[in-house]
Amino acid sequence: MRIGIIGSGNAAQTLGSALVRRGHEVKLGTRSPGKLTHWLEQQNSDDASVGSFRDAAAFGQLVINATAGDGSLEALRAAGSEHLNGKIVLDISLPLDFSTGILTLSVANTDSLGEQIQREFPRAKVVKTLNTVTSAIMVNPLGLADGEHHLFLSGNDAAAKREVQGYLADWFGWKLILDIGDISSARGTEMLLALSSRIYGALGHMNFSFRVVQ
Amino acid sequence: MRIGIIGSGNAAQTLGSALVRRGHEVKLGTRSPGKLTHWLEQQNSDDASVGSFRDAAAFGQLVINATAGDGSLEALRAAGSEHLNGKIVLDISLPLDFSTGILTLSVANTDSLGEQIQREFPRAKVVKTLNTVTSAIMVNPLGLADGEHHLFLSGNDAAAKREVQGYLADWFGWKLILDIGDISSARGTEMLLALSSRIYGALGHMNFSFRVVQ
Repeated sequence: MRIGIIGSGNAAQTLGSALVRRGHEVKLGTRSPGKLTHWLEQQNSDDASVGSFRDAAAFGQLVINATAGDGSLEALRAAGSEHLNGKIVLDISLPLDFSTGILTLSVANTDSLGEQIQREFPRAKVVKTLNTVTSAIMVNPLGLADGEHHLFLSGNDAAAKREVQGYLADWFGWKLILDIGDISSARGTEMLLALSSRIYGALGHMNFSFRVVQ
Repeated sequence: MRIGIIGSGNAAQTLGSALVRRGHEVKLGTRSPGKLTHWLEQQNSDDASVGSFRDAAAFGQLVINATAGDGSLEALRAAGSEHLNGKIVLDISLPLDFSTGILTLSVANTDSLGEQIQREFPRAKVVKTLNTVTSAIMVNPLGLADGEHHLFLSGNDAAAKREVQGYLADWFGWKLILDIGDISSARGTEMLLALSSRIYGALGHMNFSFRVVQ
């Protein structure tokens, strides 16, 4: 499958590497190709490439938004709605706001970044997921408690969510995936960051995830 | 121990009953004593009583705020700061806002109800906890997956949090309790409601809790 990843940070690179290893063709889109020279060399594969936001979105049959939250809408606008329309946009971004001393969200409670993206690109099939764990856990859920922890899916398109659920199981081995509703339920997983950041403070590491116990 | 519970709803009654069963003296404080006639009869114990918000707070060596979030500050004001000062105030309330069609929080992200209460009553030792599960699970955590799920504690007073941790283990059998920081970390557990409400929608029941898997 051809996958376009918007972003050049840790999550984008980790997802890109894991998907290349799984045999997919991956193009990372960035404003700063120089940041990805080392990543591209590491892949040592014709299946890995780097381009602009627009190049990556045009390339992908599926597009992953792995930009930092405060730049997501701008990056996706640069990618171009014509390259997102009709496609699954797997949105893993978090609306972090570092402008105050304490970590807050730039949008919460009555709206979410997932909803903002879906409103701006109404013909894209936005599925919010993977935003509750570190990138290391995203691509290797079985490395944590044999995968006995949950991932959540939010999106308006039920078929797209089922498709994404299949990909996450196939690509990375995710076992427990819970569809929690339409894209407005992205508020729930984005707002979880307010708890995750404090658990990180308590545990001293980010190698954790949540299991819904019932 | 003498425990004053501010509130007369389901959580207040369930906690009150469980604490009476554990041999504590419990006074529920309410504006509507008639709502608690049945509860009082059910207890069939001299250890159970009902009074005003002020009566309950004055009675308790420890005070539990189990009011609905939108009435918490007003109820605690009626209880009187002189009856809260120096005491542990175990705050289990949720700042629910039902004024719009979709469930939102009346305060989130940059503040929390736990913080509002602590600011209003600076000499009380506010400990936010029990606010991530239903009242049935609050008092019977072992009834769900043998208690292998987490409760979180937020508060500015470390000794008060340790004391509460002991009570929760002793009263109800809580096994996994995580101190996530000062009272501002109450944002995390209060905001978890945005996720919990969607998980409720997905599962069709509220008999669940979260385990931090690491």
